[in-house]
Amino acid sequence: MTGNPNKFQEAKLILSEYNLKLKMVKAKMIEIQNDEIEIIANTSVKEAQTRVSGPIIVEDAGLFIKELNGFPGPYSAYIHKTLGCKWILKLLDDLEDRTAEFKSVVAHTKDATTPTVKIFLGVVKGEISREMRGDLGFGFDPIFIPKQLDRTFAEIRLEEKCKYSHRAIALKEFASWYNIN
Amino acid sequence: MTGNPNKFQEAKLILSEYNLKLKMVKAKMIEIQNDEIEIIANTSVKEAQTRVSGPIIVEDAGLFIKELNGFPGPYSAYIHKTLGCKWILKLLDDLEDRTAEFKSVVAHTKDATTPTVKIFLGVVKGEISREMRGDLGFGFDPIFIPKQLDRTFAEIRLEEKCKYSHRAIALKEFASWYNIN
Repeated sequence: MTGNPNKFQEAKLILSEYNLKLKMVKAKMIEIQNDEIEIIANTSVKEAQTRVSGPIIVEDAGLFIKELNGFPGPYSAYIHKTLGCKWILKLLDDLEDRTAEFKSVVAHTKDATTPTVKIFLGVVKGEISREMRGDLGFGFDPIFIPKQLDRTFAEIRLEEKCKYSHRAIALKEFASWYNIN
Repeated sequence: MTGNPNKFQEAKLILSEYNLKLKMVKAKMIEIQNDEIEIIANTSVKEAQTRVSGPIIVEDAGLFIKELNGFPGPYSAYIHKTLGCKWILKLLDDLEDRTAEFKSVVAHTKDATTPTVKIFLGVVKGEISREMRGDLGFGFDPIFIPKQLDRTFAEIRLEEKCKYSHRAIALKEFASWYNIN
């Protein structure tokens, strides 16, 4: 469950490899404020469970910049909307240590009556680029270079991003678990 | 209801002028994510209502910087914790238009059975200073100069701040209303 069509496209592509079908539910969801995206996703999936039948996944993600104490973190969407990539680059313009990570959490419930929430975490370490590069992807993709690559997430096609991304890692963990449970 | 002792001290002082006594309830409260602090406070007071008897107020506040599209806005507390005043000044260092406003929302419910939420808003217009000034107050007080003053909120004593502040405006609106209802 997400309201973001970019996320949904990524998730659909990743899960199709596991023969899992995904449907986007556009409910007016409440997300709580918390420094930990694990806790946000956990609360969201429990709320979703009261409104949607069948198995649900909720995904939450954030970009965590080391020298900025984890900022923008759990509020990456709001901060992308207000500041965008440009201002983040300005914040970092004389910083040597540009270490950052993208984190994704997938929270899953089986059905309306099973209280257990399963949490799957995906982390990609990397750094913030010196300038925006690429026009693919969304959010902070144009300024994040994962460690394995010398390109930003906005310079690689969706199929390639889905090999490396934090969201892909978390969703693949989920899918592998789901298919044997 | 707030978990912030600085806010509580301010609120207590302001409400004492109206012969209203305030008690701080430290409950593990959930705050939702929303771009509007009115909606955040409204949701919080409704949740508080299910756990605390008697009249409740919940206060939420934020600093909204015009050139940054309202950033840090509803997430001012998190952004103060991660970025602090220093990084906000860096973001603005070559900006001429430093217009900003502090907003406070007080949400009130009468008791556990009355569904109505009353909302009181306080806004102080001003600008972001060129450097941090003063060591009083809390949060972004050292970089906010209200229009009526040539000093930041961190350069004036609590008694004086309580004449001008966004929180004071909202709380006084509430107190005046409360005493005739």
